[in-house]
Amino acid sequence: DAGKKAKMSSKSVMSISDGLRQLYMKVIKPIEESCLFPNFHNPLLRDSDFGARPLVMLLGQYSTGKTTFVKTLLDGMTYPQAQIGPEPTTDRFVAVSYGVDEQAIPGNTLCVDRTQPFTGLTKFGSSFLNKFAGATCPAKALEQMTIIDTPGVLSGDKQRIERRYDFPGVVRWFAERSDLILLMFDPFKLDISDEFRRVISACSGHDDKIRVILNKANSVSAQHLMRVYGALMWSLSRVLRSPEVPRVYCGNFSSAHDGGPGDEENGPLLQKEKEALLADLYDVPRRHVGRRVNEYIKRIRTLRIHALLVSALRDAMPSMMGVEKKRQNLIDNLEDVFLDVQRKYNLPVGDFPDIEVFRESLRGIKDFKKFPRASNSTLKAIDDVLEVEVPALLTRFGNPFQ
Amino acid sequence: DAGKKAKMSSKSVMSISDGLRQLYMKVIKPIEESCLFPNFHNPLLRDSDFGARPLVMLLGQYSTGKTTFVKTLLDGMTYPQAQIGPEPTTDRFVAVSYGVDEQAIPGNTLCVDRTQPFTGLTKFGSSFLNKFAGATCPAKALEQMTIIDTPGVLSGDKQRIERRYDFPGVVRWFAERSDLILLMFDPFKLDISDEFRRVISACSGHDDKIRVILNKANSVSAQHLMRVYGALMWSLSRVLRSPEVPRVYCGNFSSAHDGGPGDEENGPLLQKEKEALLADLYDVPRRHVGRRVNEYIKRIRTLRIHALLVSALRDAMPSMMGVEKKRQNLIDNLEDVFLDVQRKYNLPVGDFPDIEVFRESLRGIKDFKKFPRASNSTLKAIDDVLEVEVPALLTRFGNPFQ
Ligand SMILES: Nc1ncnc2c1ncn2[C@@H]1O[C@H](COP(=O)(O)OP(=O)(O)OP(=O)(O)O)[C@@H](O)[C@H]1O
Ligand SMILES: Nc1ncnc2c1ncn2[C@@H]1O[C@H](COP(=O)(O)OP(=O)(O)OP(=O)(O)O)[C@@H](O)[C@H]1O
Ligand SMILES: [Mg+2]
Ligand SMILES: [Mg+2]
Repeated sequence: DAGKKAKMSSKSVMSISDGLRQLYMKVIKPIEESCLFPNFHNPLLRDSDFGARPLVMLLGQYSTGKTTFVKTLLDGMTYPQAQIGPEPTTDRFVAVSYGVDEQAIPGNTLCVDRTQPFTGLTKFGSSFLNKFAGATCPAKALEQMTIIDTPGVLSGDKQRIERRYDFPGVVRWFAERSDLILLMFDPFKLDISDEFRRVISACSGHDDKIRVILNKANSVSAQHLMRVYGALMWSLSRVLRSPEVPRVYCGNFSSAHDGGPGDEENGPLLQKEKEALLADLYDVPRRHVGRRVNEYIKRIRTLRIHALLVSALRDAMPSMMGVEKKRQNLIDNLEDVFLDVQRKYNLPVGDFPDIEVFRESLRGIKDFKKFPRASNSTLKAIDDVLEVEVPALLTRFGNPFQ
Repeated sequence: DAGKKAKMSSKSVMSISDGLRQLYMKVIKPIEESCLFPNFHNPLLRDSDFGARPLVMLLGQYSTGKTTFVKTLLDGMTYPQAQIGPEPTTDRFVAVSYGVDEQAIPGNTLCVDRTQPFTGLTKFGSSFLNKFAGATCPAKALEQMTIIDTPGVLSGDKQRIERRYDFPGVVRWFAERSDLILLMFDPFKLDISDEFRRVISACSGHDDKIRVILNKANSVSAQHLMRVYGALMWSLSRVLRSPEVPRVYCGNFSSAHDGGPGDEENGPLLQKEKEALLADLYDVPRRHVGRRVNEYIKRIRTLRIHALLVSALRDAMPSMMGVEKKRQNLIDNLEDVFLDVQRKYNLPVGDFPDIEVFRESLRGIKDFKKFPRASNSTLKAIDDVLEVEVPALLTRFGNPFQ
């Protein structure tokens, strides 16, 4: 690769995200459009998909101190309309993001704003949008990330309070887009209720993003904390399916609740745990970029194979007679097309799309001759992005994987 | 019951165990013999079955400090032929029991001694008996309990060292007879190897006896201990099946290994944990008696139903003709006999024996007329033991359930 030179390393590129955006808009998007990529895979990306700040979602039973922790992160500022107190208080999902002015934005408004990454939430309907809001304030931490505060998960009797929207579905939506998911517990609310179980399941597949917080650790003695923490790990082990033990932070994550038997006995430990959680949070922007780069590369790899597949389908079509029969035949024997392409280009089988999903999408395409040929120049453009441009961006702006 | 008076509350009864033994020998054993109880259920009890001290079994990976803990319990005495050191050292099961003199007894000798509760171990064959030993010493703790030290469970590569006997089977045998099963871990040996998993499975059904020890907790920092302990609970949760969290003691259970970062940071906590484990151990004799009383009552309840069942079978037999045909018929339609007895005496269904096991045993009895009738006096004798004699013993010697 010594001879190749990245074209995008121009001064107009401001950051890795910006570089990825420019590459996408200039090189990749036109190819995606001509290959009908969105008909088979994900929608085209928009500018706002690249600019979004990393998301950190807070989940947990009511009154465990989620909103108080947000306040601590915002240097003691409460975000507009935040509610803190015993009993379930926060009754909505709140996207707390940076703004010079303090402002509260209704969910309906936030979801139609195409510069914001929340338009996808409209699918959860207006009973959800009434329980969604934005809040801005000028806190330093929010320059680095947007925080999603959530309504406390209910337990026992309280579970009878009915949600009028798909709570786990909304959690799943945010989980997919978050860089960190903080599950908050406290020593007095350890039990994992049915609703909590559903919420945790909604995060499955994102185990690497999950961190567990055992808050208010200063309110109990060292021996009591040991028991409580053990019981928490015991039940989490049965709810989270991952083989790896999640990182658990035991501490007091409120700047307003010092003291208590735990502070006397465990003071230094709890302090270290708090610092470790903050360090984990400060690392979010770096990991966010890493994740985006990863997804970006995966998408382009998928596009490359997609381009070869549709090109093969096009080439297989007869020029005049028996067009529809051949089309049906190709759909029915898609396995052969996949195999041919895989062998011809010596591609890893694991990179291929799910064949049934692909077949289903293919049925929607009436004329396979509309597919473009995968020309050498198209393939070279894709390879250049993967092998030259992206690595150059990483080198220039600091590789988030190192 | 006010008018009834216990006959056994004589001065010759020394303890609850002794009272149970006397009642058994005088009242219950003759009934069990005449009803052919041992053909269907457990063997007859012998004097030595009542005298045995409670057993406490120590299990865990090699080098976690099991033998060192035994030494600590014995006020610093090492039992004869004990081995302590890194790498797998203890290579046999050792029953460490009270004796005025220090003595080592080979397994083969110990297993033929009918005053000892180990005769049942002969079924594991001589390759096991070569790996079994007794050790006596005059330590105070041993007046209260016999300790079973065990060979360290192997992990990883070491698992290839082949055991020449059924290791989990032996563990199961001891688990059934133990009052406490201590699973020992240390911060450096947390992984639950395949052999360990089999050993833990062998203890299943005895969850109430299991305690977990995280030893050498002083050798790591408070934060490290937190991680280690969490990881332990995480993996135990998947191996132990019980819904309840087991009690875990985190501490330094050797009197010879003080110091270390944990002692500085966690000193008071580790000290409290050690005391709590010792208190748990001191409670073993009381729980032992409780367990024996429980088993005893269960056995007599089983006997009562057994007596009624075999009596019904006897009564159903014709006096002369078609004896064998009727016998077959009763065996085949045992369900009806069970149902009749259950209804006639209004007995709880759950107290009945497994019908298939009973049927199988019944095939071995050629002449049902050998079964005795359940006379009123027999039933009254049984009921007296359950309702008068045992309660009187409990009152007299202190009810272990209170
Ligand atoms: N670290 C802490 N130690 C002790 N008390 C705390 C701590 N953090 C919060 N609290 C108290 O716990 C209560 C609940 O706090 P908060 O409203 O922040 O919880 P929440 O998780 O946001 O609840 P909800 O899910 O109902 O919105 C409040 O009374 C708060 O003062
Ligand atoms: N509480 C403790 N803290 C630190 N080191 C300890 C502690 N207890 C024991 N050790 C050391 O650990 C090593 C193993 O101890 P020991 O032989 O008692 O373990 P074990 O579990 O009986 O091993 P095995 O299963 O091989 O018999 C020894 O070197 C011992 O000195
Ligand atoms: Mg809240
Ligand atoms: Mg040993």
